[in-house]
Amino acid sequence: MDHLSVIKIGGNVVDNPSALDEFLNNFVSFKGPKILVHGGGVMASNVLKSMGIEPKMVDGRRITDEPTLKVAVAVYAGWLNKMIVASLQAKGCNAIGLSGADCNLIQAVIRPKEPVDFGYVGNVTAVNGAVLQSFLNQGLTPVLCAVSHDCMGNLLNTNADTIASCTAKAMANLFPTDLIFCFEKDGVLSDPDDNNSVISNIDKATYLQLKEAGIISKGMIPKIDNAFAAIEASVSKVIIKNALNLNKDIQTTIA
Amino acid sequence: MDHLSVIKIGGNVVDNPSALDEFLNNFVSFKGPKILVHGGGVMASNVLKSMGIEPKMVDGRRITDEPTLKVAVAVYAGWLNKMIVASLQAKGCNAIGLSGADCNLIQAVIRPKEPVDFGYVGNVTAVNGAVLQSFLNQGLTPVLCAVSHDCMGNLLNTNADTIASCTAKAMANLFPTDLIFCFEKDGVLSDPDDNNSVISNIDKATYLQLKEAGIISKGMIPKIDNAFAAIEASVSKVIIKNALNLNKDIQTTIA
Repeated sequence: MDHLSVIKIGGNVVDNPSALDEFLNNFVSFKGPKILVHGGGVMASNVLKSMGIEPKMVDGRRITDEPTLKVAVAVYAGWLNKMIVASLQAKGCNAIGLSGADCNLIQAVIRPKEPVDFGYVGNVTAVNGAVLQSFLNQGLTPVLCAVSHDCMGNLLNTNADTIASCTAKAMANLFPTDLIFCFEKDGVLSDPDDNNSVISNIDKATYLQLKEAGIISKGMIPKIDNAFAAIEASVSKVIIKNALNLNKDIQTTIA
Repeated sequence: MDHLSVIKIGGNVVDNPSALDEFLNNFVSFKGPKILVHGGGVMASNVLKSMGIEPKMVDGRRITDEPTLKVAVAVYAGWLNKMIVASLQAKGCNAIGLSGADCNLIQAVIRPKEPVDFGYVGNVTAVNGAVLQSFLNQGLTPVLCAVSHDCMGNLLNTNADTIASCTAKAMANLFPTDLIFCFEKDGVLSDPDDNNSVISNIDKATYLQLKEAGIISKGMIPKIDNAFAAIEASVSKVIIKNALNLNKDIQTTIA
């Protein structure tokens, strides 16, 4: 069976029209069934600022009160999602944009209010893989934004990396599934200042060595921990690479 | 075969949380397969104003420049569409929110720039009934916002009444289809000031008489002309009624 790829892009692509266009060209020619997950970028913050609402962050995470939720859902599920879908349609890819509320796709619970009340932010509890499978079987390419729902009528702002890894885990029960995190570097680097120092393969043993040697640094540790958690949940492999290298063999493969 | 109903609601419902909730309760218990089409209400204008962008109207129609398009798509396809979908999910209706770009659902051409350049506004050219049929067969209830696309990567702001009637016409090739326009009055009234003066049935002959007698007034004429155009395109009947009377028998039936 063809491998399914769940591919996640973040703000560095979504916020840059020419990078997004180049990425989407690569995405369309990327082989096999695929699901795109996109982050939000800075547009929601800019809209809030232009409306006179100051974005509130704690430890780098957004506090989502009701006006912030409205803007986040409007920007992520509305403009960004539909702009990406329209662009993919123009490139010949039959995309369908979805939030977690659509067809009950991504269920979540509101994050506990202690120690910090983040407001309308969701922790994912379930992804409906069967409905994604039915869309893939119809020849559709799902494009997911980072919005979930609590099944009680509330939309919830949700981390896009989490949406991607939970989606890959759910699909791994149905297809051999790869999870591809695109970001601004070419992969996991042995020297953070040298984009040519990509570590091609990381398994559990080399990860422990690299961590011990201080080569894998603080911010990368939770990413790689999450990658191994996905693999333990039957995802075939997790790939970390530059969004603009989607069809090139420059990447870190975690398996 | 069950009749399919294409049901359109406008700003008077969408802008009023308690009216919307009551309408959605009625919608969920409405019998048979159904498609909801919603307008945008005043939220897009209010967001534009809060961003310091003055909405531009000519003859009651919105001029859609690029910033206006972004806000319109964000509000219609993002916040309003997903808020309605999440609410329907909470009420036990497996809704899926869609713009015209999703699965190439609603194709349009940008409106001719003469005599007035309305900007990113679409005239619908095709509705993909087969994909809506496949979703209905999967037990999904499509919720359509008033956004189409030109298949060249542009999203287009589109009249919600037109989306509803074009959708009903496309579905009429596949199912016996009724088109229900919900608005703030109880139906077509013989006395515009008396909500108890609903004309129950209008056929082509009575329409001509009512027009001749001046009972059907200026603003209602294009609505009823469009209703007869839908019936000529195989829609079974067009119903005009109050959104809050969805499951009551108070209405004008045009056939």
